[in-house]
Amino acid sequence: SASIDIAVIAGDGIGPEVTAEAVKVLKKVTASEGVELTLTDYALGAEHWLATGETLPEETIEALRGHDAILFGAVGAAPGDTRIPSGLIEREMLLKLRFSLDHYVNLRPSFLYDGVASPLANPGTIDFVVVREGTEGPYVGNGGVLRKGTPHEVATEVSVNTAFGVERLVRDGFRRANERPRKKLTYVHKHNVLVYAGHLWKRTVEAVAVEFPDVSVDYLHVDAAMIFLVTDPARFDVIVTDNLFGDIVTDLAAAVTGGIGLAASGNINMDRTAPSMFEPVHGSAPDIAGQQKADPTAAILSAALLLNHVGYPDAAAKVEAAVAADIAGRSTQAARSTQAVGDAITAAL
Amino acid sequence: SASIDIAVIAGDGIGPEVTAEAVKVLKKVTASEGVELTLTDYALGAEHWLATGETLPEETIEALRGHDAILFGAVGAAPGDTRIPSGLIEREMLLKLRFSLDHYVNLRPSFLYDGVASPLANPGTIDFVVVREGTEGPYVGNGGVLRKGTPHEVATEVSVNTAFGVERLVRDGFRRANERPRKKLTYVHKHNVLVYAGHLWKRTVEAVAVEFPDVSVDYLHVDAAMIFLVTDPARFDVIVTDNLFGDIVTDLAAAVTGGIGLAASGNINMDRTAPSMFEPVHGSAPDIAGQQKADPTAAILSAALLLNHVGYPDAAAKVEAAVAADIAGRSTQAARSTQAVGDAITAAL
Ligand SMILES: CC(C)[C@H](C(=O)O)[C@@H](O)C(=O)O
Ligand SMILES: CC(C)[C@H](C(=O)O)[C@@H](O)C(=O)O
Repeated sequence: SASIDIAVIAGDGIGPEVTAEAVKVLKKVTASEGVELTLTDYALGAEHWLATGETLPEETIEALRGHDAILFGAVGAAPGDTRIPSGLIEREMLLKLRFSLDHYVNLRPSFLYDGVASPLANPGTIDFVVVREGTEGPYVGNGGVLRKGTPHEVATEVSVNTAFGVERLVRDGFRRANERPRKKLTYVHKHNVLVYAGHLWKRTVEAVAVEFPDVSVDYLHVDAAMIFLVTDPARFDVIVTDNLFGDIVTDLAAAVTGGIGLAASGNINMDRTAPSMFEPVHGSAPDIAGQQKADPTAAILSAALLLNHVGYPDAAAKVEAAVAADIAGRSTQAARSTQAVGDAITAAL
Repeated sequence: SASIDIAVIAGDGIGPEVTAEAVKVLKKVTASEGVELTLTDYALGAEHWLATGETLPEETIEALRGHDAILFGAVGAAPGDTRIPSGLIEREMLLKLRFSLDHYVNLRPSFLYDGVASPLANPGTIDFVVVREGTEGPYVGNGGVLRKGTPHEVATEVSVNTAFGVERLVRDGFRRANERPRKKLTYVHKHNVLVYAGHLWKRTVEAVAVEFPDVSVDYLHVDAAMIFLVTDPARFDVIVTDNLFGDIVTDLAAAVTGGIGLAASGNINMDRTAPSMFEPVHGSAPDIAGQQKADPTAAILSAALLLNHVGYPDAAAKVEAAVAADIAGRSTQAARSTQAVGDAITAAL
């Protein structure tokens, strides 16, 4: 019978608050669809590290592998917290999960909802999805330091890109573009400067394009992409790009569609050799944690991406519709608590 | 007696058109200030490569060293032109100049002029300057390809960062911040992921900050910087960042201040061991080349940066004032030719 077994990593800061609302929505929609829902909490993140010294033990990774999917809140210490080495949790926990579970498609939809104010004067219709590579590029942690702390220090960062990694990502982007009405793929890189990686991307896109004759292909240098994201975001349909450029592009995309309080993402293993992980694009926002101020919408939309991935597209569509209806009414409402937003979306299901 | 000896590299596409207007302005302002102006044209760029097979011979670099400064238009072939290997001119000519002449400060002011429409609904007051590193980082051309063209291809890009290179750039940023009323420096990197380079930057900023007690220091991950550049660009005063992040940040900054038709830049060797080079941020725009459609304002403002660098701040201020006055009247005017804009600014001097 229909069932979903989800691992929940609520994490730090506003993570637990927004995740609680996403769980509320998941419970309601699975119940109404007759799907059995199992939830297992995993304590991980900065707080957990302070308490235990653990970032992400191998046993935890193994345990996570047993679930259908992972719902992730947010992790990260307050910027001023000197007890936690900067970036430790991000690398040893969040990125370690993405890499260990082979989340090669970092999927980030960008949609300007009716009723949401964009910082752009004339945003037009924004409805695109960024397919960001999630398992290689400058994120591999390859590099080093020579003569650290001396005037002769040299620090390197190595971006590692493979035909295997680029091709599976690019093909995923083409598949998604092929299923969308506009069938347009824009790949973003900087191949006039980063020739080695850039030309691997270029050749790969050209080769895979042959399999998708209906998809039109466009290329933009990452700097030019910045300009179009604010002057003409409507031009984008599917953006395919590397790990670091994807990080940059998706925060800008979130900003022009009304902020990271609404931006959902999936860290997806399309081969299903391990569970995929769904998380809001925003971070742990320690400054507003515990105050019921955070917008749980991004977490709820991430739960919808989860439902879609594990085989319940109808349930996902219901959640998305409830979110869209809720957002449409926001401009005339007073600010609501995290819970109130979650309750309203749950009620609208 | 007062004199300036300038090498002019007009380049490709709209380069010659916009450079002609910058030269017109330079002639007028130097004449009225009693400064003798010598101009020497150098043929370089995609067209020159097609005609001669030369990108940038050593003799040309040596000849350029003899001038006080370089005025640069734009280089680059049309995107569809398969006769020219993609990125060749950018790397072997433009970047080679920046590296050979040790242009370590890539200075890019961002200013929203009265009368210019920003794509942002509420841009606020935008007046900041990006101090982009120009001689290292991911731009060094270090990397390689293994098993090219096979399913087992691996392509790497190595970002090389030195204490020497980061420190001189960061110190330049602090000096500039210290001279500005708000005295605020924001450094942009991604040190939660790029730990080796990121922590070199972090330690360097912290060390140099001690020499500038009046400058307040802020850090942003590059992804967060994207958000603030569209939601609150007024928060920035001096941004200090690496070569690739600077490329990305400055195109977005140009977009929010009304487009790259207005964005000037200087590739500056602050030690004056070689001439500095001043160029509009925009490219060669082959699609509108030769049609008198390009806006020469960025080229003219780059000439003002040049005047400032070679010791004529009053002349620079006059050019900037003439540009500001011209821009203020634009919203009520019909579109003008490249020449007409140059003539109007020259007349207003
Ligand atoms: C927290 C950080 C490591 C992460 C990233 O850079 O991928 C975040 O910015 C994101 O976009 O999910
Ligand atoms: C043309 C290119 C190599 C160059 C760069 O990336 O620096 C350009 O984008 C710029 O910003 O001046």
